Amino acid sequence: MEPVLFYGVPQGCSFGSIVALEWLGQPYRLCRIEMLEHPWDPLYAKINPRLKTPALLLEEGEPLTESQAILQHLAARGREAGLGFAQGSREFDRLSEMLAYLNTDFFGAFGPLWTLYDSQGMSGVEQELLRRLGRQQVAECCAHLDALLAERTWLLGERRSLADAYFVGIARWAEYHRLFDLEHDYPHLARHLATLKADAAVRFAEAIERGESPDGAGGFRGHVTLETLRPRLAA
Amino acid sequence: MEPVLFYGVPQGCSFGSIVALEWLGQPYRLCRIEMLEHPWDPLYAKINPRLKTPALLLEEGEPLTESQAILQHLAARGREAGLGFAQGSREFDRLSEMLAYLNTDFFGAFGPLWTLYDSQGMSGVEQELLRRLGRQQVAECCAHLDALLAERTWLLGERRSLADAYFVGIARWAEYHRLFDLEHDYPHLARHLATLKADAAVRFAEAIERGESPDGAGGFRGHVTLETLRPRLAA
Repeated sequence: MEPVLFYGVPQGCSFGSIVALEWLGQPYRLCRIEMLEHPWDPLYAKINPRLKTPALLLEEGEPLTESQAILQHLAARGREAGLGFAQGSREFDRLSEMLAYLNTDFFGAFGPLWTLYDSQGMSGVEQELLRRLGRQQVAECCAHLDALLAERTWLLGERRSLADAYFVGIARWAEYHRLFDLEHDYPHLARHLATLKADAAVRFAEAIERGESPDGAGGFRGHVTLETLRPRLAA
Repeated sequence: MEPVLFYGVPQGCSFGSIVALEWLGQPYRLCRIEMLEHPWDPLYAKINPRLKTPALLLEEGEPLTESQAILQHLAARGREAGLGFAQGSREFDRLSEMLAYLNTDFFGAFGPLWTLYDSQGMSGVEQELLRRLGRQQVAECCAHLDALLAERTWLLGERRSLADAYFVGIARWAEYHRLFDLEHDYPHLARHLATLKADAAVRFAEAIERGESPDGAGGFRGHVTLETLRPRLAA
């Protein structure tokens, strides 16, 4: 079977991997994980024992976890399409660097804000601290990315890469948490986010998240359920 | 000039990159950054405008930031030595996955504990929340790594990789913050940390951090100061 991407909703960082798969255009399937439904199907522990999304079930039947590893894997498949670069090249290093920055600092900056969603038993003072920490961390990252994007069309320069696919899945959280007036405070970042939101693959990923059945650019072969994968996972 | 690694002290996560360079055995230099001295030499902004370590100044004169990008770069150079793997291979994916996990979840878990060091103006309640969050996050990661290491000698299996080099620089923070009785609570993780601490490259990196002048395994060509790099950075 084609590779299967397990994506989490709502507001999953898996979003970037869906965009990447669409840009790549090679056959793939999707499996939806409702992150707020507890407990998760215990079968998913065979995919990722830490119960996180995204994960990519490869053709050979092994799951690959971690956004960055999935994107590096897809980047290797997308070298001819210019979405990834040869190991050892300057461009390979630049993509690794940007993905690492987005996956650590930018992704992590939102951590305290997501912790707030699980704030049962927390005092008002504690919640306020998390809100302040999160906002401050996200602001720092947005300022850095805005400065970069003042001089570039895409995150790595004049051509899109899988870093942009990952970026859009995270940057939209700044809107979701209503942290800033993005257009005013970080105009270059806002411009890049707007460009990406007009991209067909991003619109596809949004439709997938909403539970619709978009066609996509050609690679998408439909959804599978975790249950139909049981024989493959039991092996 | 040989590549120059900018490493931060004390307790920098750059530690893993020093160990990686020693394991690699290819010529390199070091440049020390005292992270607690403020303000940092403004020249460092030419290396990393976000003022973070580690960074690797490459032969061609371009700086590469982010532990993960540096380790992927060194892994590409270390393929013959078995420290890294060919892009597109299963092993390449496994190394990316482990480095990503260590660089996001494990590294990030300690975030609230480091924030405590800059807790001026924070109330006792706020400090307690950060301590609790950090401890809980680190415990989750330690449990995951301990379970993995119950079945493996090294993080990726039966052979050491650059994931182990990065691991030691982070795992030692659990001791530093005195969070657990490691030997008792996470015996497999503790065993791996002890093995690594007996490794010559790890001892070398510890001596470097203490400000000593160890010989190393052959690649180390000595320290340079930021000042001596000025002509190269001004270009």
